[in-house]
Amino acid sequence: MSKILVVGSVALDTVTTPFGSVKEALGGSAVYFSISAIKFLEPFDVRIVAVVGEDFPSKYLKLLKKNKIDTEGLKKEKGKTFRWIGEYNYNLNEAHTIDTKLNVFENFSPEIPSAYKNTPYIFLANIDPDLQEKVLNQVISPKLVVLDTMNFWISSKKESLKNVLKKVDIFLLNESETRQISEEFNILKAVKKILSWGPKAIIVKRGEYGAIYFDNSSIFYVPSYPLEKIYDPTGAGDSFAGGFLGYIAKKDKVDRKTIKQATVFGSIMGSFAVESFSLDKLRSVRWKDILKRYKEFKNFTYF
Amino acid sequence: MSKILVVGSVALDTVTTPFGSVKEALGGSAVYFSISAIKFLEPFDVRIVAVVGEDFPSKYLKLLKKNKIDTEGLKKEKGKTFRWIGEYNYNLNEAHTIDTKLNVFENFSPEIPSAYKNTPYIFLANIDPDLQEKVLNQVISPKLVVLDTMNFWISSKKESLKNVLKKVDIFLLNESETRQISEEFNILKAVKKILSWGPKAIIVKRGEYGAIYFDNSSIFYVPSYPLEKIYDPTGAGDSFAGGFLGYIAKKDKVDRKTIKQATVFGSIMGSFAVESFSLDKLRSVRWKDILKRYKEFKNFTYF
Repeated sequence: MSKILVVGSVALDTVTTPFGSVKEALGGSAVYFSISAIKFLEPFDVRIVAVVGEDFPSKYLKLLKKNKIDTEGLKKEKGKTFRWIGEYNYNLNEAHTIDTKLNVFENFSPEIPSAYKNTPYIFLANIDPDLQEKVLNQVISPKLVVLDTMNFWISSKKESLKNVLKKVDIFLLNESETRQISEEFNILKAVKKILSWGPKAIIVKRGEYGAIYFDNSSIFYVPSYPLEKIYDPTGAGDSFAGGFLGYIAKKDKVDRKTIKQATVFGSIMGSFAVESFSLDKLRSVRWKDILKRYKEFKNFTYF
Repeated sequence: MSKILVVGSVALDTVTTPFGSVKEALGGSAVYFSISAIKFLEPFDVRIVAVVGEDFPSKYLKLLKKNKIDTEGLKKEKGKTFRWIGEYNYNLNEAHTIDTKLNVFENFSPEIPSAYKNTPYIFLANIDPDLQEKVLNQVISPKLVVLDTMNFWISSKKESLKNVLKKVDIFLLNESETRQISEEFNILKAVKKILSWGPKAIIVKRGEYGAIYFDNSSIFYVPSYPLEKIYDPTGAGDSFAGGFLGYIAKKDKVDRKTIKQATVFGSIMGSFAVESFSLDKLRSVRWKDILKRYKEFKNFTYF
């Protein structure tokens, strides 16, 4: 067992999907990630560095603490909490942003508390690549760094992103971002180009089609868990990352076998995330629920 | 080892993709299927029932014979051979039909030669569902019947298709056809509905995302083989079917383990088909090439 540091967003999400809607529900990359990752670890072994506004509901802070997330690095700043308004149509693979209010997140500049600087496993959730770089300049000899990003940073700060990628072990991105950043349509060509920039491995997230792990000498496919209803895809990618890095930190090793298994746990945690709005399903998941799906994945893929 | 009967089309395909084009190349569902399936079987253990016109090039008939396909059931009729003109853009998952000239295929009415009537494994390629039914009325106690179709029959002859599905063991269709025939967007819901109509199992083909096998108590996922260049997706689905049924006929059993392995062989044969225009790559593939990819699939999916 080891510890994880996540640097990302804490948000109030207003989301509409074909199955309903929620208003100002707890969300944000650091939240989905940590609620997912903590399932694999000891209480308070997932550390959040993020920012909220003065209006951040105390019930949400309590929720994080009740779920045994270390919130020492969660700062409260003057102003309002980051808000996202989005919707999904029947093609649940893609979010349509209706409004983004960065609020206090606009001036977020991550300061890593000294107690956190030796954390071995780091997740740089989707924030400005210059801030991701800033985090890496503060931490001391991490064992594994995983980085996520989004289309906005690829188009507005590609050079910064390419710079930070040199220091990253595993780069997580979705299929359209893979094409966008590489300017290649074919995923295999795209991945080879991105690997040449520095990251040791890439995970391409493909929504309902699962995910693919690539490094210089291997490829591993994991399907998504079959579900009849996807209530809300928000946070699926960060929950995937939480399961992935959570399992690696639990095993405290990064050999290929562990990474393959971690990719399966990533897919499993993504599947729980989408079965409800906000964190409702994800936070109620027990270890035996996770293991049940893990065994099912063997039946889904072994021949 | 056992034998297979395929009833489908023999066509002259004119195809344009981002990587080039071919004019009046040998194609058609029965051709791709049989060239793929024969790799698994003894010479002349794949039997074609189809029709061509008087203009069918003798080099193509020679090609089929050279590849050890039993063409006793390939009839030559007055008129011209079926022609298809299509193109693919960078999204290689979907063909755009520019022109279809059915020619002699328009009045095709499959007569199964008496020597073929006891064939244990039957592939009903994409033809009018009333003709598929007609084939089933002529064959005697097959061990396994696999049926393919297309969007055109789903919209124009849905009731005929639903009728023949009652007599089918495995129904092959692509993802958009799965949604179309079931009127369900969610694939799992769609599959449950289709299974309730009678087929014992369904394979949903997902192009670059691989395929999923479903029956009433199991799900099996196979990825597509990673390729940097897909020259021409034409025939991928029929080559998949050929690998799938070819392997089942080779083993001459239909237990779940064989079916899972057959699904992997299907994906492998589909991958060879798309690596060249027409049949160029598919027909040159040797057994050791197939086995090499089969071993790679274990690395791709076992954890």
